Amino acid sequence: MQRILSVELPRHVGARITIAGWIHRRRLLKAVSFLIVRDASGLSQVVVTEPELRAHLETLPEETVVAVEGLVTANPAAPGGAELTEPVVRLLGEPAQPTPFDLYRPVLTPTLPTQLDHAPLSLRHPSRARALRISAAAAAGFRAGLDGLGFTEIHTPKIVATATESGANVFALDYFGRPAYLAQSPQFYKQQLVGVFERVYEVGPVFRAEPSDTTRHLAQYTSLDAELGFIGDHRDVMAVLRETVAAMVARVSALGAAVQDLALPEVPAEIPALHFSEALKIAGAPADEPDLAPAHERAIGEWARREHGSDFVFVTGYPMAKRPFYTHPQPGDERWSNSFDLLFRGLELVTGGQRLHRHSDYLAALAARGESAEPYEPYLQAFRHGMPPHGGFAIGLERFVARITGAQNIREVTAYPRDLHRVTP
Amino acid sequence: MQRILSVELPRHVGARITIAGWIHRRRLLKAVSFLIVRDASGLSQVVVTEPELRAHLETLPEETVVAVEGLVTANPAAPGGAELTEPVVRLLGEPAQPTPFDLYRPVLTPTLPTQLDHAPLSLRHPSRARALRISAAAAAGFRAGLDGLGFTEIHTPKIVATATESGANVFALDYFGRPAYLAQSPQFYKQQLVGVFERVYEVGPVFRAEPSDTTRHLAQYTSLDAELGFIGDHRDVMAVLRETVAAMVARVSALGAAVQDLALPEVPAEIPALHFSEALKIAGAPADEPDLAPAHERAIGEWARREHGSDFVFVTGYPMAKRPFYTHPQPGDERWSNSFDLLFRGLELVTGGQRLHRHSDYLAALAARGESAEPYEPYLQAFRHGMPPHGGFAIGLERFVARITGAQNIREVTAYPRDLHRVTP
Repeated sequence: MQRILSVELPRHVGARITIAGWIHRRRLLKAVSFLIVRDASGLSQVVVTEPELRAHLETLPEETVVAVEGLVTANPAAPGGAELTEPVVRLLGEPAQPTPFDLYRPVLTPTLPTQLDHAPLSLRHPSRARALRISAAAAAGFRAGLDGLGFTEIHTPKIVATATESGANVFALDYFGRPAYLAQSPQFYKQQLVGVFERVYEVGPVFRAEPSDTTRHLAQYTSLDAELGFIGDHRDVMAVLRETVAAMVARVSALGAAVQDLALPEVPAEIPALHFSEALKIAGAPADEPDLAPAHERAIGEWARREHGSDFVFVTGYPMAKRPFYTHPQPGDERWSNSFDLLFRGLELVTGGQRLHRHSDYLAALAARGESAEPYEPYLQAFRHGMPPHGGFAIGLERFVARITGAQNIREVTAYPRDLHRVTP
Repeated sequence: MQRILSVELPRHVGARITIAGWIHRRRLLKAVSFLIVRDASGLSQVVVTEPELRAHLETLPEETVVAVEGLVTANPAAPGGAELTEPVVRLLGEPAQPTPFDLYRPVLTPTLPTQLDHAPLSLRHPSRARALRISAAAAAGFRAGLDGLGFTEIHTPKIVATATESGANVFALDYFGRPAYLAQSPQFYKQQLVGVFERVYEVGPVFRAEPSDTTRHLAQYTSLDAELGFIGDHRDVMAVLRETVAAMVARVSALGAAVQDLALPEVPAEIPALHFSEALKIAGAPADEPDLAPAHERAIGEWARREHGSDFVFVTGYPMAKRPFYTHPQPGDERWSNSFDLLFRGLELVTGGQRLHRHSDYLAALAARGESAEPYEPYLQAFRHGMPPHGGFAIGLERFVARITGAQNIREVTAYPRDLHRVTP
């Protein structure tokens, strides 16, 4: 079909062209009707004066898909300064059934659960569609940033034999009559593949059987994982993460007018970093606190803004006790770890760190936690046969988009969220 | 760590630099030892004459990770024309344990099952690593091709409530105490999101509980899915697929020397296309044959090469009875469908077609197959509320790479294959 997009309309004033899309809104006035047509690029206004066509429009509910041929006419009051007159309307399917809520209002009015029940429809609303465009841009920025730094993209198994990384919160599966589990992260695989490519990333789904219903957790989310070898320590990982986040924000920013109302952050050339022990002091927390509470994170976010004019701040050196067994301790003081969180405006955005790389260290770490090394054998193979010092990070794509857009609930920026209560549509 | 990659060595002749990587091979001769160090970019040769270091090397098995500082010295016999002399070797971990097979031989000698059992190690072999690099390049080409055509990347659920698309061969899951299934494809979601973005793609895992053990099937593979709206018919989809495959081959080709031994195909500006009924004639098959057998596909591949000098050929119009319920029939003769397969050198590479877009057509198609519409309701919502004519295709990434590289078994080009018998490592 030869058609132009809405956004191209102003370039065709004086010509007869065809647009195609969804009837976003009909305004059936006394002497004239306005048809607003929505396509992937935006909205077009069609002016209808011909009585027969005006009558026909009354039989075409919102969301009916049409092609409209017409004359492009300048009109400063129309979107983009041009509208279609003298239209010929052709149905591209059958009349839509009436929608359960209006998509043409500036804000979606149904409750979030109702929106999610009707996701195929509510995602058509510009606010919901924008979040998914931001998500696509952020993922593209993640890849572009890492491609530029010599990383190789990988695809790893989502079905695994043992629920190794944390044990809890895994989905169990019938795998040809045997038990198996959905992978909670590509952690072990990305580490192994550092042994092949030195620097790897993966964009893919991860699965958490989160038994609680929060605004921040999903049972499936898209994890942006990176891992790199031949590092000095976690600070080399933080430097790569800084470049990656900058590339993600740049791609989101390149969406232009669509995101101009968002206060997109600047990523400082060097993101300020605080050791966990200093962070506790700044947050006014006791020195023996084992982790940062949300209020502490907010205080550290305020400190970063106040002292460094930065929306971002690294906290490094989290206590070993709070980090997974593969975490590398801080040399010289093994209470602390070579790990970090990246906070954005006082909220945790990314977690990462240096990992153990010696086989003997893995055996010792598992023994110290009272765990058998046996279920980890397929994973430990890589370390048995030589691994360089390495580390990495993981960014939850939906969480990143929620933070950037200020969404209160991660479900607002996820196409088809999966949670404790929801497995459809 | 300040280090250069192997591939950069020749540019530093006369300087002292540091390389780092895995001990790929030691050749301990009478008067001199050669150390071959492997990194992500290739191999470097280190010449060791100093007796103490030569003795030390005897304690460092292959795959031990080292940094080597040395003088870059021109030597036409060395890889890239330069080698390191006067070396200082530093361990970056602990000595590796001896490997169960040699990685330095040109071809991996263990059986495929043994290679797969030791995937973290066997993937380090240049032949296995190359397949994964080709995979990364092909996926990047898929995205770049579609980005250039105005597509938006999507991420859709891998856990679904109903085993809708084919019923058989699905993995069942315990989803918070309820039954759920792993998605066999993003088909329904990508169609729904045509309603939002018009043109969408997804790169993600799909899951098939294939009960048979073949060289072509995996229980998890990476599906490259695309779907586009406002098409005339399936030929518009084929045109987009042609651009996409060309972009994929171009990216693989850009790997340069690493792929120069592969007979990479040229993608003709217009890929020859045959209707299914003509294809049967060319293959010498009876006119009432319901599908193409492998021998038929080979004959059609030979025809395309002979008549059109093309490695690629489309077969269109497959019988409706052999295609999923959402397939659009061929207007005027509903025995046939607006679907296609893309054959590459006589083997099926991609499947696609135009889909139904009217809600009433879905109800009729399900009724004709004796299926209730009820389990499809969440999916049918999108069609109830206006969908444009649309279609799409899906490329199995691992299958694409196997075809391009001539691998006999898809497991040779998959990092960690999952099949009837294998769920580790």
